[in-house]
Amino acid sequence: MVAITIGDYLLNRIKEVGIDTVFGVPGDYNMPFLDMIEDDADLTWGNNANELNASYAADGYARIRGVGALVTTFGVGELSAAAGIAGSYSEMLPVIHIVGTPNSKSQAEGAILHHSLGNGNFQVFVEMFSKITCASTHLNHDNAIKEIDRVFEQSILRKRPGYIGIPIDLINYEVQVDMQALNLSIPKNPARTQEVALKVVMEAITNAQHPIIMVDACVQRHALQEEAIAFVKRSGFPTYVAPMGKGIIPEDLNNYRGCYAGSITIEGIAKEVQRADLIIELGSIKSDFNTGGFTYSLDQGKTISLHSFTTKVFYANYDKVSMVEFLPLLTKSLPRAARAFELGPRHEPAPIEAGTEITHNYLWNKVPEYMDPNCIIVSETGTSEFASFNLKAPKDAFFISQVLWGSIGFSVGCAVGAAMAARDRRLYLFCGDGSFQLTCQEVSVFLHQGLTPVIFILNNDGYLIEKLIHGPHRAYNNFQMWQYSKTLDYFGGHLLRNAQDVTPAPVGVESLVRTRGEFEAAMKIVQSEPKKIHFIEVVMPRFDAPRELILQVETSENR
Amino acid sequence: MVAITIGDYLLNRIKEVGIDTVFGVPGDYNMPFLDMIEDDADLTWGNNANELNASYAADGYARIRGVGALVTTFGVGELSAAAGIAGSYSEMLPVIHIVGTPNSKSQAEGAILHHSLGNGNFQVFVEMFSKITCASTHLNHDNAIKEIDRVFEQSILRKRPGYIGIPIDLINYEVQVDMQALNLSIPKNPARTQEVALKVVMEAITNAQHPIIMVDACVQRHALQEEAIAFVKRSGFPTYVAPMGKGIIPEDLNNYRGCYAGSITIEGIAKEVQRADLIIELGSIKSDFNTGGFTYSLDQGKTISLHSFTTKVFYANYDKVSMVEFLPLLTKSLPRAARAFELGPRHEPAPIEAGTEITHNYLWNKVPEYMDPNCIIVSETGTSEFASFNLKAPKDAFFISQVLWGSIGFSVGCAVGAAMAARDRRLYLFCGDGSFQLTCQEVSVFLHQGLTPVIFILNNDGYLIEKLIHGPHRAYNNFQMWQYSKTLDYFGGHLLRNAQDVTPAPVGVESLVRTRGEFEAAMKIVQSEPKKIHFIEVVMPRFDAPRELILQVETSENR
Repeated sequence: MVAITIGDYLLNRIKEVGIDTVFGVPGDYNMPFLDMIEDDADLTWGNNANELNASYAADGYARIRGVGALVTTFGVGELSAAAGIAGSYSEMLPVIHIVGTPNSKSQAEGAILHHSLGNGNFQVFVEMFSKITCASTHLNHDNAIKEIDRVFEQSILRKRPGYIGIPIDLINYEVQVDMQALNLSIPKNPARTQEVALKVVMEAITNAQHPIIMVDACVQRHALQEEAIAFVKRSGFPTYVAPMGKGIIPEDLNNYRGCYAGSITIEGIAKEVQRADLIIELGSIKSDFNTGGFTYSLDQGKTISLHSFTTKVFYANYDKVSMVEFLPLLTKSLPRAARAFELGPRHEPAPIEAGTEITHNYLWNKVPEYMDPNCIIVSETGTSEFASFNLKAPKDAFFISQVLWGSIGFSVGCAVGAAMAARDRRLYLFCGDGSFQLTCQEVSVFLHQGLTPVIFILNNDGYLIEKLIHGPHRAYNNFQMWQYSKTLDYFGGHLLRNAQDVTPAPVGVESLVRTRGEFEAAMKIVQSEPKKIHFIEVVMPRFDAPRELILQVETSENR
Repeated sequence: MVAITIGDYLLNRIKEVGIDTVFGVPGDYNMPFLDMIEDDADLTWGNNANELNASYAADGYARIRGVGALVTTFGVGELSAAAGIAGSYSEMLPVIHIVGTPNSKSQAEGAILHHSLGNGNFQVFVEMFSKITCASTHLNHDNAIKEIDRVFEQSILRKRPGYIGIPIDLINYEVQVDMQALNLSIPKNPARTQEVALKVVMEAITNAQHPIIMVDACVQRHALQEEAIAFVKRSGFPTYVAPMGKGIIPEDLNNYRGCYAGSITIEGIAKEVQRADLIIELGSIKSDFNTGGFTYSLDQGKTISLHSFTTKVFYANYDKVSMVEFLPLLTKSLPRAARAFELGPRHEPAPIEAGTEITHNYLWNKVPEYMDPNCIIVSETGTSEFASFNLKAPKDAFFISQVLWGSIGFSVGCAVGAAMAARDRRLYLFCGDGSFQLTCQEVSVFLHQGLTPVIFILNNDGYLIEKLIHGPHRAYNNFQMWQYSKTLDYFGGHLLRNAQDVTPAPVGVESLVRTRGEFEAAMKIVQSEPKKIHFIEVVMPRFDAPRELILQVETSENR
C-alpha cells in the first residue's frame, strides 16, 4: 500500500493509458488538478478556447491515440462540452471527461453555489452525462480509487466516453492504495462458438466466386488497422471502404478499389460491389450518411459481418465472437497465396472540368497533388465530408470526419486535438464558412500551441448543405460575411496577407483565393513553407456542391 | 374546432406570450419550422452563430421581455445549448427550447440517423433536458397540442425553461383544435393564511425602529418591479439591493441606499444594514456570489422574506403565500405617509485615484458619466460583474449579470438577446478578454442584425478572476493574445481603426485604449455616434481588480 492523493492517482491513470495532452478550460472547481497537469513534465495542457472545442479536441486526439481526456468545471463548463461528449459516444471514441466539482462539504450542505442550479442538487449533471457515457461517477472519499479505475476500464474497453466528477477537496486528499495496472484485457471469445464461426466463414470464402471486403470505422476504433490490412493482403479480395472507413486501407494496395456508400458511390465502383457473391464487412456502421442514405442494399444472405462484440454470418449471430480476436485467426486460416481478380483500372471521380472558378470538381481533384504523405485530413460535416469520400488519398493519410454525429464546427476543435496527438504529421483541415463560424476561436489554440496545420475555409456564403436539403433561398441559411482571410491575424498570428510583407518571424501565411491560379499559387507556398500554419480562404460559387453531397440529399428526399 | 398544423399552433403560442424574436441555428430537422418563422411578419429569426450563444440570447431576451425562445436541431444542436438552458433554470428565466427531431417513422424504426447516438434511442436528449427544465416533452401525433400548452404554461408560471421536441413530420401535420388562450393565471394565495401573514408582518413593521428593504432578482423575474417600487416609496424604508437585484429600484429614489452583499459591501452601507431591526426581503436568492460568499449574516429572527411561492416571517413559513399577490396587499396596508429616516449622504465607492492607467477604480467610477439613461448594462461573470454591483446606475438602467450560474462568455450572447428585445435602449456590454474568447463569434450577429451596442473588452491578458482564486502565475490561466480591437472588422463590419478613416457608411467604430485620455476620447465618440456599434478594447493592468472581486475571493478562501 502506498499513500497517494486522488488527484495524483487520476493523473497516473491518464498517463498509464498513453495520454500526453489533456484538453479543457480552467474553472475554479478544477484548478488544483490543473496544477498537477501543469507540473507534470509528461503532460501538456490543451488550453482550449471553450469547452465545446475542448471536447472536440479530445475526440480528435482519441481518434489518433486511442483515448483522450478533457477537464472542465462543474455545471457551466461540463454542459458546454455535452455535444462533443455525445459525439464521442455516437462515433465510439473513449474520451475521459473529468469535471472539477464543488467542495464535498458544500455539496453535503446543499449550498447555493455559483455554477449550480441553485437547488442544492449536485448530482444532476452526472445524471445527465450518464446518458451519453458508458460509465460515469461522482467521486467521494471512499469510492474514488475503485470508481476511477472502473470508468477508465469501461470507457477504453467499450470505446465510449467516461465521466469522472471530482470534488475539489478530493484532488489533494490522500488515500492508501495497492497500486496495480488497469485491467484493459479484452475477454476471450467463447472458444467453441468461435471455432464454428471460423469453419462456416472459411467455407463461405472457399465457395465464393466474387468475394469482397468492406472496411469501416470500428476497425480503426479497435486499433485493428494492421490486422485488417493483413487480411486484405493475404486474401487478395477486392476491398472497399465505407465513408467512415476511409483511409484505413492504404489506397496504394493492389486490391483496394474505392469507397462504397450505396447510391452516392462512383458508378463503376458500385457495379463491382453489387456483383459480389460474398461481402465480408469489418467493423461496419450502417448509419444514414455512411450508407448513402440507407441505399447500401447488399444482400444479408451474402454478408459476413465482423463486429466489435459479435460475428454475424448471413442470418446467424455468433455471440461474443469479437473481431479483435477473430480477424487475425481468420487471416491465418486463409491460403498463403492471395487470390487474383481481374478488375481493370480503378474507377475514379470525374476529371477536372475546364474553367477558372474554384468548383468542388476542381478543388477535390486538384488538392491531393499538393498534399504530403502521412498527413491527417480533417473534413468538416457537410460539403467537405462528402467530397472527401472519393478524394485521392496521399500515402498513409489518416482521415477524420464525423459522419454519424455530424456536429457542424466539430472539425476545427477536432483538428487541434489531432494535431496535438501527432505533431510530426501535417494536418489539412477542410471546413465550410458556416461550420467555421461555430468554433472559429479554436484557431487561436493552433497559434498558442505552435501547431502548423493547413486550414482551408470553403467560403460559399451560407450553409450550403442546409440549402440543398431545404430552403435554398431562405434568409435563415445565410449569415454575416466575415473576413475569413484575416483569421490568423485577428487571433494573434500577427501576420500580413499572402506572405508578401513578411514580419521578422512570421508563424504563418494567410491567403484569399478566388481563382484556380490563385489557389495553385497559394498551394505552392503551402508546400514550400511546411513549418508554418497556413490559412486559405477559398471562395467558391454559391450553389456549387460536390457530386456526392447532391446525391446524398436526393436519398434524404426519398425517405 | 379549427384545423391547424402543429407547427402553426406552436408558432401561435410563441406569439401569444409576447415573443417577437426566436433565436437559434438551422439544422435539417428544424428547417420547416424556420420557414414558418421566416414567413411570419411578426417574428424575427435570431440567426445566432452557434447554439450556445443562441441559448444565451434567449435568456437575455427573457430577462427583458419575460419569456424567450430558441430553436435548435436534434442532438448536436440542442446539446450545444445545454449550458445556456441550465443557466436559465438556475437564474429563473422561462426560455422555451424547441428542438427539431427526426421523422416519427425513422424514430419508430430506430434508424441509425446522423445527429443520433447511433443506438436507436431518440428519447435520450429529452431525458437529459428534463433535468434542467421544469417541463419537457417530445411530441407525437396525439399529444402535441396538450403538451405544447403544458410546457408553455409550466415554464412561464414557474419561471424555468421548458423543452419541446418536435419530429420534423409533425411540423406540417394538421390537427383539429378547440383554440383557447393559455392559462397563465397564478393560483390565488390561501386567503386565511395570507390574512394572518399580513397581520404579523404589519405588526412587525409597526414595531420596528430601523426597518429596511432588501430587493433581489425574483422581483424582476415575476415582473413585480412596479409593485416593489411602490412598496419602497410608500414605506419610506431605507432600501438596498442584492447584487442580482441591482437596477430594480431606481437609484434616484430618496430612500435607495446601495448594494448589500455581506463582507464585500461598501463599509458604510454594511453598517446601515447591520443596524436594522427588521429586514424585509423581496425575492431574495442566497447564493454565494449574491451574498458576499455567504457573509450576508443578517438575523433570521429579524427577517421577513417575501418569496415567489411562500412568505417567511422570522421563523414561520406561510405556505403558498406568493409575493405576487401579497406585496401589493402589503403596500396598501401601509400608512399613506412614508416614514422618514435620517441616514445622511449615501456611501459611495472610493473616488478615482490619480494616474494615467485605466484601472478598475478609474473605469467604473468614470464610465457612468458617458452612459445614456434607460440603457441596458450587461456585465460578464467575473471582474465586470463584481465591479457593476456598485456602479452608479444611469437613470432607469436595466442590469444583467449571471451572478448565480456564472458561465463565462454568457454576456456576449445574452447581449444579443437583450438588444433584440429592446432595440430602442442603448446597450453597454462589459466583458473580459478571457470570457470573450468563448463566445466571440456572436459579435457578428450584432452586425448582421444591425444592432448598435457599445462593447467594452477589458483586456488584462488572462483569466483574472481565476488568477485571483488560484494560480496567479499558472500557464493555464493565460491564453493567446488576440487583436481585439479588430473584432468588428474581422466579423464583417468592414471598419477602420479609431474612426479616422471612415468608409462610405460605416456601421461602427472600434478603438484600442490604453490610457485615460484615450478612453475619454473614445467615450466622446460613443456619445456623438449613438446609431453605431462601438467596440472598445480597454487595456488594463494585468493584476488590477475591482475591490469587490478581491473581497469576494477572500470569502471563498475562508470556506
